[in-house]
Amino acid sequence: MNFKKNDTNKTLLYGFHAVREAWLNPDRTIEQLFLTDHSAKNFEAVLSEAKAKGLRRPPPSHVDKKKLDKTLPTGAVHQGLGLITSDLPEQDIHDFARRAELSGKSVLVMLDQVTDPHNVGAIIRSACAFGADGIIMQKKHAPTLDGVLAKTACGAVEHVPVAYETNLSRALESLKEAGYFVYGLDERGEKTIDALRGDRPEKIVLVLGAEGPGIRHLVRENCDELMKLPTTGEISSLNVSNAAAVALFCCQS
Amino acid sequence: MNFKKNDTNKTLLYGFHAVREAWLNPDRTIEQLFLTDHSAKNFEAVLSEAKAKGLRRPPPSHVDKKKLDKTLPTGAVHQGLGLITSDLPEQDIHDFARRAELSGKSVLVMLDQVTDPHNVGAIIRSACAFGADGIIMQKKHAPTLDGVLAKTACGAVEHVPVAYETNLSRALESLKEAGYFVYGLDERGEKTIDALRGDRPEKIVLVLGAEGPGIRHLVRENCDELMKLPTTGEISSLNVSNAAAVALFCCQS
Repeated sequence: MNFKKNDTNKTLLYGFHAVREAWLNPDRTIEQLFLTDHSAKNFEAVLSEAKAKGLRRPPPSHVDKKKLDKTLPTGAVHQGLGLITSDLPEQDIHDFARRAELSGKSVLVMLDQVTDPHNVGAIIRSACAFGADGIIMQKKHAPTLDGVLAKTACGAVEHVPVAYETNLSRALESLKEAGYFVYGLDERGEKTIDALRGDRPEKIVLVLGAEGPGIRHLVRENCDELMKLPTTGEISSLNVSNAAAVALFCCQS
Repeated sequence: MNFKKNDTNKTLLYGFHAVREAWLNPDRTIEQLFLTDHSAKNFEAVLSEAKAKGLRRPPPSHVDKKKLDKTLPTGAVHQGLGLITSDLPEQDIHDFARRAELSGKSVLVMLDQVTDPHNVGAIIRSACAFGADGIIMQKKHAPTLDGVLAKTACGAVEHVPVAYETNLSRALESLKEAGYFVYGLDERGEKTIDALRGDRPEKIVLVLGAEGPGIRHLVRENCDELMKLPTTGEISSLNVSNAAAVALFCCQS
């Protein structure tokens, strides 16, 4: 197993669900799959599924657990699977807007400098579960779609496209021109996010900021409306992925 | 700083919010607070607040960051603060039921073998934010209210009581005798949790299981009703703390 973190166009994945979904994703070109004896058994059905789909996949390489422990990042919960694959195809907000044009409706999530890969992974997973159409992050202040993020997302990175944009305020301007309405999740909001469950615009962007600083000033100014969570307790803020899950749940119905 | 992990009746905390809320909790007897020069500045207002409340607190000890790094668990995001304190007072489900008797309503969360301290910490934080009255975990398969759990809970462990019970099925039986209605979050549920937002019993327990295995058979048998999340995507399950946040949000209103 030979992988350098800055190999361009290559992604390192581990963990059963992350590897499974990538293996079954026709948009991925797989370079190498590493399995321990134990995980090889669990993965047999996935190999058959890929074959039935007609996907071209290289034969898996067997490796012992110790070797995998050493090769992957320290502490990686790899479950006996490691995968080197091509990156996902690049996406941008214009792709999102074009698809929304066809379907007539769209829910996008913008993460303003949310950098913790566990949080972003969990948000992509919730976005997938609640049927959101895409994630937007800032190119320079966002984690990459591999390793612990992909593990936490449980394979959802294969299903929810992510656009990395240079300037989030400008991205919001473009999306508004394309007919999107922009909600920012911010405690200064007048309405609570329950309002999203009723009549709401068909195409929306949900903006969430990092815990502590929240949504940055310029990005917030580009929100059409701020909404808050209806919290009541002594500690009234939520973990950002928990807040996103509640907001996405409200957008869904 | 001298703390052994099995010091009985003592808890080790770190991180600004976790330490702040414990310092201001009159139920805590504080043994020692360690501050770096940088965190000492940020903590000044908290010291004054405790004084104004008439809390007896020992003078803080100054320590350099390297020393704190070495003393606390590897990788602990301590933000320059470490605290040795007495444990929180023990609670059990009868305390919860008594308080519910007085207030007439109650939302409890039972975690069936959810062991990841980040997840449990985030759930306690959401429980606090959405006004839940208590958490129930199984004595032998649950994390303790310190370290990374307390850090992730951002101080919410000081506000939401946690009962560790030996047998969760029996705990549910007792709570049902005390008038509680028990909802289990399970994909086999017929209704979705949206139903909780309408007319629901005043006293409820929300049961969540670990990711993968879910709620164990015997515990599930003690649920009055199973409810599912209204997910639609290709990956349809949520991280357990995200699922709890959505369920607690639904219970709130």
